[in-house]
Amino acid sequence: MPRFFVSDDMLSRPSAVLEGEHAAHIKVLRLRVGEQITLCDGMGHEALCTIEDLAPGQVQVAVGPVTDASSEPAVRCSIYMGFPKADKFEHVIQKATELGAHEIIVFPCARSISRPDTKSLSKKLERWQKIAVSAAEQSGRGYIPQVLALDSFAQAAVRAAQADLAALFYENEHTRSLRQAVEAAPFTTAAIMTGPEGGLTEEEVQAAQDAGMTVCSLGPRILRCETAPLCALSAILYAADELA
Amino acid sequence: MPRFFVSDDMLSRPSAVLEGEHAAHIKVLRLRVGEQITLCDGMGHEALCTIEDLAPGQVQVAVGPVTDASSEPAVRCSIYMGFPKADKFEHVIQKATELGAHEIIVFPCARSISRPDTKSLSKKLERWQKIAVSAAEQSGRGYIPQVLALDSFAQAAVRAAQADLAALFYENEHTRSLRQAVEAAPFTTAAIMTGPEGGLTEEEVQAAQDAGMTVCSLGPRILRCETAPLCALSAILYAADELA
Repeated sequence: MPRFFVSDDMLSRPSAVLEGEHAAHIKVLRLRVGEQITLCDGMGHEALCTIEDLAPGQVQVAVGPVTDASSEPAVRCSIYMGFPKADKFEHVIQKATELGAHEIIVFPCARSISRPDTKSLSKKLERWQKIAVSAAEQSGRGYIPQVLALDSFAQAAVRAAQADLAALFYENEHTRSLRQAVEAAPFTTAAIMTGPEGGLTEEEVQAAQDAGMTVCSLGPRILRCETAPLCALSAILYAADELA
Repeated sequence: MPRFFVSDDMLSRPSAVLEGEHAAHIKVLRLRVGEQITLCDGMGHEALCTIEDLAPGQVQVAVGPVTDASSEPAVRCSIYMGFPKADKFEHVIQKATELGAHEIIVFPCARSISRPDTKSLSKKLERWQKIAVSAAEQSGRGYIPQVLALDSFAQAAVRAAQADLAALFYENEHTRSLRQAVEAAPFTTAAIMTGPEGGLTEEEVQAAQDAGMTVCSLGPRILRCETAPLCALSAILYAADELA
């Protein structure tokens, strides 16, 4: 069923009017009066709505009862990724959103080649957030993951370490597996931290460990920087029984 | 350590000479006499080799004892994918190879938009195999996954059904989860079948089931056709303890 993210106040009224992009999209989909769409506030709430009137550029719907979005994982997984090249980060935003990430956080690493300055960063964040919105719509998410940029690795490590399961993936870790970290204790929040193209430095891994993160392996194969977080996210959602 | 795929007879002699692309690559990496590289036959066997002589376009190495590649999963996972658009399939080949897939198989589906004819298919297969070789080298695989094209969905379903765990992922399956299929019985081979952009038809799902495949859900979020097989592969490798 077609799904549109709207402001939360639209869900609280008995009827709502969609305009602009949403109205245009409904026209493209050739929806008719009487057909149903889902309106979602992007914060985990949604309502089944019925199209009542179709005018050019304006679609009026009857708003049904508001419920919790059924497609949201109970485990909240945050992706923490050292600034990779832009196209790779955009790939991760799209795929992590589809898979069910709660938020996607980027930060500079010692080996980050790409580090946008403050001005270009704010434009990029806008663009990245749009990618998350679009992927959330397409995949039927009830929550739009926030894309955030932090100023430093240290800041990222301290924030990530607050998760119940705070895992940093490092290719030189050969002892502790993700599975051991997952099975160590129950969790409702998870942080998945990975490095940029050139990997994390030993100092960064140590700093993350000092901040309270668990260093884990994802196995003997060397995953690209854009593959590792999505593999870990898939595995953690599987382990938490959220791929069901 | 740099890794090169060579013909298997090169591993059986005490010394070997690398030429062409491999010699050029060794030059680019600025490797010196005495440094080590891994030669691998792409069939699961590898040898630690020491550079003995560097001449223009020719690198001679002393070949060490041949061992089983340590980076190969014990579980052999085959990806079966309905022909998607070319760029998406290339993405899946690269990522599935990195993650540890054993083979990658493509076949026409009722809703496949892209269906190369016989002539263009043989060129494409060559190109696809190169993507697998390159991803296998970069990720340190000991085995190069074969990329195969089958003629029909029926052929794919019959072949896939021979795996111990033969899972078809379908967005309209809401009862059986991948986890239930994984936990039903031990497995050393797994088939992961997913559809093209427009999804599988009910008839295809029924045919796969008749062939002996298990229809599973990957959860309530709608994954793109290129995301679903990689999510399932990550989850199955995690479940089989192969991400350790």
